[in-house]
Amino acid sequence: MLDMRLYLVTDRSHLAGRDFLTVLDAALRGGVTMIQLREKEASSREFFDLAIQVRELSHSHGVPLWINDRLDIALAVEADGLHIGQSDLPAAVARRLMPPAMKLGVSAQTVEQAVQAERDGADCLGVGAMFPTGTKSDAKPVSADELRRIKQTVRIPIVAIGGINASNLALPMRCGVDGVAVVSAIMSAPDPEAAARELREKIDAHLGK
Amino acid sequence: MLDMRLYLVTDRSHLAGRDFLTVLDAALRGGVTMIQLREKEASSREFFDLAIQVRELSHSHGVPLWINDRLDIALAVEADGLHIGQSDLPAAVARRLMPPAMKLGVSAQTVEQAVQAERDGADCLGVGAMFPTGTKSDAKPVSADELRRIKQTVRIPIVAIGGINASNLALPMRCGVDGVAVVSAIMSAPDPEAAARELREKIDAHLGK
Repeated sequence: MLDMRLYLVTDRSHLAGRDFLTVLDAALRGGVTMIQLREKEASSREFFDLAIQVRELSHSHGVPLWINDRLDIALAVEADGLHIGQSDLPAAVARRLMPPAMKLGVSAQTVEQAVQAERDGADCLGVGAMFPTGTKSDAKPVSADELRRIKQTVRIPIVAIGGINASNLALPMRCGVDGVAVVSAIMSAPDPEAAARELREKIDAHLGK
Repeated sequence: MLDMRLYLVTDRSHLAGRDFLTVLDAALRGGVTMIQLREKEASSREFFDLAIQVRELSHSHGVPLWINDRLDIALAVEADGLHIGQSDLPAAVARRLMPPAMKLGVSAQTVEQAVQAERDGADCLGVGAMFPTGTKSDAKPVSADELRRIKQTVRIPIVAIGGINASNLALPMRCGVDGVAVVSAIMSAPDPEAAARELREKIDAHLGK
């Protein structure tokens, strides 16, 4: 079963000189339940080498490793899941090339995209951007109403993403999502473990856990 | 059998406003025997969509389509081959994930890299840069002596690459290579068909064909 409560999407540009694996380890201790390794600048070899290291770390915490966009990297490191956006490979093509046990996540901004992704074999959805975000400055905003409609329409679990932090997560959580995905709320935090712990406690409170 | 005589590696930055498929079609009419689609800036979806179109075109000329670096794109479009460099996925990892019928090419600069690539399952090698080139300004130069040693050491076919044009291809051809790979000599030519034809005639003359 997917535990999508606190889904960390990585971005090494937030490290400000700190060691990547040290920050991830802190985030995992704080209660992250999924990690998605997102590398838009790395060479394939760098991405592969990094994914091997992050997989070892996340698995040592019992947390699955997902790969952003790159099916080849996901296959090469036997990742637990692949997350693709609307400018990545078509979901149905990715699903056909993935081992059945590997999970597929898809980004969706609308009910139509969500329904299509579920039909194409997605195991979960990332819906956003919920709030303005510096990570993807071109990300279209998704209203709380649209998020609620998506949640009511598809059966697969959903995380909200985009500018979410401890102060504003109540909005998506009240729409019924299964968790939230964050980048800077953990990656940029001076204390990533404390940041993750605070997020996780608030999410668990909303879920009644 | 691989016909590596005239191997076109694409670079859309050379188009100067011309249509990509029109230039490729001209190059194919001129006698290109292999095409490698190389896209370092495109999104995965753009790369996929383009690869579908280029495959249809190259197959209509009976010419195989290879993909640079991205195993996922090669798998998704059922390309004829995948070419990887030393900063891409490890060759042995790529080979393990590829269907047996899909060919694997590997870049090599030294005898050691060539031997390792052959051992890892490469079906052919690209050796270079033979001459200074603007396409990969960081590419290390490979001497004619090293190229000759590589050719004498491995059994798989070899193309020379890097700054090769109609005026200088005699040097690598005399080292015994099975063909040459070019980028700008065709992509930047005012008449890509004539450029390809001239290259192909000179290569065939060296090979005694």
